[in-house]
Amino acid sequence: MISKTLVGGGAVCLLAAAITVSTTSPRLPAVVAAATAPAPAYAANGDMLPPTNYREWIYLSSGVDMSYSPKPADMTMFDNVFVNPEAYRSFVATGTWPDKTVMVLESREAMSKGSINQHGHFQGTSVMGIEVHVKDVARYPGGWAFFDFASPTSNGKVFPQTAACYSCHQEHAAVDTTFVQFYPTLLPIARDKKTLSDSFLKEEAAQPATN
Amino acid sequence: MISKTLVGGGAVCLLAAAITVSTTSPRLPAVVAAATAPAPAYAANGDMLPPTNYREWIYLSSGVDMSYSPKPADMTMFDNVFVNPEAYRSFVATGTWPDKTVMVLESREAMSKGSINQHGHFQGTSVMGIEVHVKDVARYPGGWAFFDFASPTSNGKVFPQTAACYSCHQEHAAVDTTFVQFYPTLLPIARDKKTLSDSFLKEEAAQPATN
Repeated sequence: MISKTLVGGGAVCLLAAAITVSTTSPRLPAVVAAATAPAPAYAANGDMLPPTNYREWIYLSSGVDMSYSPKPADMTMFDNVFVNPEAYRSFVATGTWPDKTVMVLESREAMSKGSINQHGHFQGTSVMGIEVHVKDVARYPGGWAFFDFASPTSNGKVFPQTAACYSCHQEHAAVDTTFVQFYPTLLPIARDKKTLSDSFLKEEAAQPATN
Repeated sequence: MISKTLVGGGAVCLLAAAITVSTTSPRLPAVVAAATAPAPAYAANGDMLPPTNYREWIYLSSGVDMSYSPKPADMTMFDNVFVNPEAYRSFVATGTWPDKTVMVLESREAMSKGSINQHGHFQGTSVMGIEVHVKDVARYPGGWAFFDFASPTSNGKVFPQTAACYSCHQEHAAVDTTFVQFYPTLLPIARDKKTLSDSFLKEEAAQPATN
């Protein structure tokens, strides 16, 4: 049973993520890159269609056992964050996100012993969770919404705008409610373009990131 | 001073990597995606031109503190592996690598405290090392070569074919001298296409990967 607080590199919905992980089946099928689909795309009921080819998008970063709460993770897990290439190109040019940005947070099991590896962790074939943070100005108040996917191939359910993830991202995110502070190739771009939020700059001045 | 044995998710040259990390400057500049260039490309002296846009290639996986030796890492570091999109497409179709495959191993500093993160690790802006594993059948005996890059923008120096990385990859790699056992979306493809090496299948039967 997975009880880890699943929090990670970017598009994570803090409280809801923990609920998600504890209620879904323990191991989801491995994700294999599939056909390209336009993103974001929705079902008639407002659910989001799964971004099945996100592993072919632009990789932003990975974390391991990240936790935003005082309690450390109680199992080792990776999170990987991807963004659709169109949004990435726009960010590189402007330092912020365009409409129709789709960020995917994939949580993956961490393996330790295997083949010739003796220490540390590598990523296994089991996907433990998928969340999406999408910018769709015409659809959502504030412009952004979070979705949870019970499996990589099922439709995603939107988190209500009252969920803690929205206020947390609003208060702490480096750029436009996204955790660019955890995406190492994007942070210098935002700094250069002067798109970092005042709240992030204040936090950073008070507590610079450390090893 | 970095003394960690830098070994990781894929294109790593075991012994040479340790040497590399201990002799290069401790922090290289952050990598920011640059213009597309054909890969692989070489200087007249046989050095490899840096694959400056590898962060826009296909992401394969990340590891943390991976070590193939009995000694654990003495500092925390991530490794991220990318492959050129043309080679990835071919792998998805065939389960093995075409000529002109270029795999990039990027080692990156691990941060712990920063912004709202309190536990675990996220990736920082400093690149600690870059290595490339390239398949270029007309140039190299065995078809493959390893290169080390002193910085993300300098030309890469080839490792001699007598370096331990070649024999280690030959003996332990899951597919065509590459560590597909550490790339979770590729391993099921290779299994399906029956391209896993006999040596890997024997190792796996004797010691399945564990958390």
